[in-house]
Amino acid sequence: MSRGRPSLISVDWGTSSFRALLSSERGEVIDQVETDSGILKVAPGEHERVLFLAVGGWCERTGAPIVMSGMIGARQGWVEAPYATCPAGLLDVASAMVTIRTAALGPVSVVPGMSVIDSHGAPDVMRGEETQVFGALTASGAKEGLFVLPGTHSKWARVEDGRILSFATYMTGEVFAVLKRHSILGQLMVEDGVLGEGFDEGVRSAAGLQRPGELLHAIFMTRTLGLFDHLSPAKLSDYLSGLLIGAEIAAAARDIREATVIASANLTMRYCRAGALLGLTFTRAPEHCALLGHLALLAARGGAPA
Amino acid sequence: MSRGRPSLISVDWGTSSFRALLSSERGEVIDQVETDSGILKVAPGEHERVLFLAVGGWCERTGAPIVMSGMIGARQGWVEAPYATCPAGLLDVASAMVTIRTAALGPVSVVPGMSVIDSHGAPDVMRGEETQVFGALTASGAKEGLFVLPGTHSKWARVEDGRILSFATYMTGEVFAVLKRHSILGQLMVEDGVLGEGFDEGVRSAAGLQRPGELLHAIFMTRTLGLFDHLSPAKLSDYLSGLLIGAEIAAAARDIREATVIASANLTMRYCRAGALLGLTFTRAPEHCALLGHLALLAARGGAPA
Repeated sequence: MSRGRPSLISVDWGTSSFRALLSSERGEVIDQVETDSGILKVAPGEHERVLFLAVGGWCERTGAPIVMSGMIGARQGWVEAPYATCPAGLLDVASAMVTIRTAALGPVSVVPGMSVIDSHGAPDVMRGEETQVFGALTASGAKEGLFVLPGTHSKWARVEDGRILSFATYMTGEVFAVLKRHSILGQLMVEDGVLGEGFDEGVRSAAGLQRPGELLHAIFMTRTLGLFDHLSPAKLSDYLSGLLIGAEIAAAARDIREATVIASANLTMRYCRAGALLGLTFTRAPEHCALLGHLALLAARGGAPA
Repeated sequence: MSRGRPSLISVDWGTSSFRALLSSERGEVIDQVETDSGILKVAPGEHERVLFLAVGGWCERTGAPIVMSGMIGARQGWVEAPYATCPAGLLDVASAMVTIRTAALGPVSVVPGMSVIDSHGAPDVMRGEETQVFGALTASGAKEGLFVLPGTHSKWARVEDGRILSFATYMTGEVFAVLKRHSILGQLMVEDGVLGEGFDEGVRSAAGLQRPGELLHAIFMTRTLGLFDHLSPAKLSDYLSGLLIGAEIAAAARDIREATVIASANLTMRYCRAGALLGLTFTRAPEHCALLGHLALLAARGGAPA
């Protein structure tokens, strides 16, 4: 299979993972490397060495520029890349990129995260997701839409006229994880692996909630539905998952009926299934949105730094 | 001070604590003992020994009957006392009490918990709180009202005509604890101990929420308000506390403007403060509601079992 010439080393460097792709100018993946060297594992002063070990070979062989996004640009990362503020488009973010001049790898670009102040005056932040949204926009040619990036901290971003107008974080994934591991709710749970009835039941429970605090009541049903044999132990984890994801979608999408999901296969399946029950149709973004975003940001800036 | 004659040994035996009071027939506390011998710490077959160690002396000296409530009547307790179902009044619960015939302590009465099926068909349960509600009703002479028993699993009970019509559990206390201890939200928190601005800010945030899933967004503000220095580290724990308690109260009380709180001094203070911000006035129940409930249940049944 013929691929284009290596044109970009795209790095998604998060809290607990490191992922680099060697890409053609058209976004074809030529090579890739993934490790658990997230920023929490890398001591100050060690970032260049870790990056060199992962992509030094590509860099020497191809001379392709390196672009990084994710928590690597946070205060506790390699270098702090100050947040671009909403609303912001590709050009705004591209021009706020920070360049690290390294000895071994030449100039390395870091994409800033984004911040927003919501209608109540409360701030919100993201790092890396903005790049994926720009990648999805580039891939589809769309200039507007609602985008969800589910996960530990799900991000929902609204795009108009090619700019990210606003976004909001939902702690869905982390709330699910801590309740399952550390609360009484995990006690009755047995792993199953088949996404089905329990998940749907949770989504329907979410749809029936009216007041915000009712969520604190509904999650306790994970226990009582199990105690009263309304749901088998194998369905309880998915009930809680469906309840939280359903509540997130209903709150974040409001009356919008179409959105794009940028996620792993497992989470995409869950969001599509919950969306179908709630009247929201999800379109799946292409793979490697971060890489596509890096290409678009580099192009918007007029190429790599000298 | 002259007290009545010892007439009851009142035992509140929960998951992680054991508390016994020696009471006069008017509910005056003559003596008390409290240990951490909750049911999780007591092996099967050991309950009588643990109880004897705690109250055997009172029992021999006074001959007062023993009444127990709480998780001791659960399947994982000493003996299972099947739930009384809503609606249920003092007589219904009194007549569903279970008697354990012990060698060393004579007959010991166990108050059943209560169960309810909500309007969506989901079950809910409580053990011990029903006794406290009956105690509070007896103390005030009231026949109706809304009662909250805040805690790890807060219970809200509606009473009409002297009967508990329905109730609901909110996992507020446990959600707060696991988020503080095990999620990213605890990272920025510093203990303070002064209930103030952070708590009020959280309650106001709760009041501004519209959709249930927005709670998953609002809890993340505990982090971003800290990151952006909108709240000092010492106020973040109380922000999360106010947010969750505020959401619970707004959902459980709905349009009701008066309720009774049965809780420790610390939780009573928090609920009264949040209630004031949300337009709900809490009346504080007297101390020892469980004991008052035991007396009322014993009287309703016509005395101790022979």
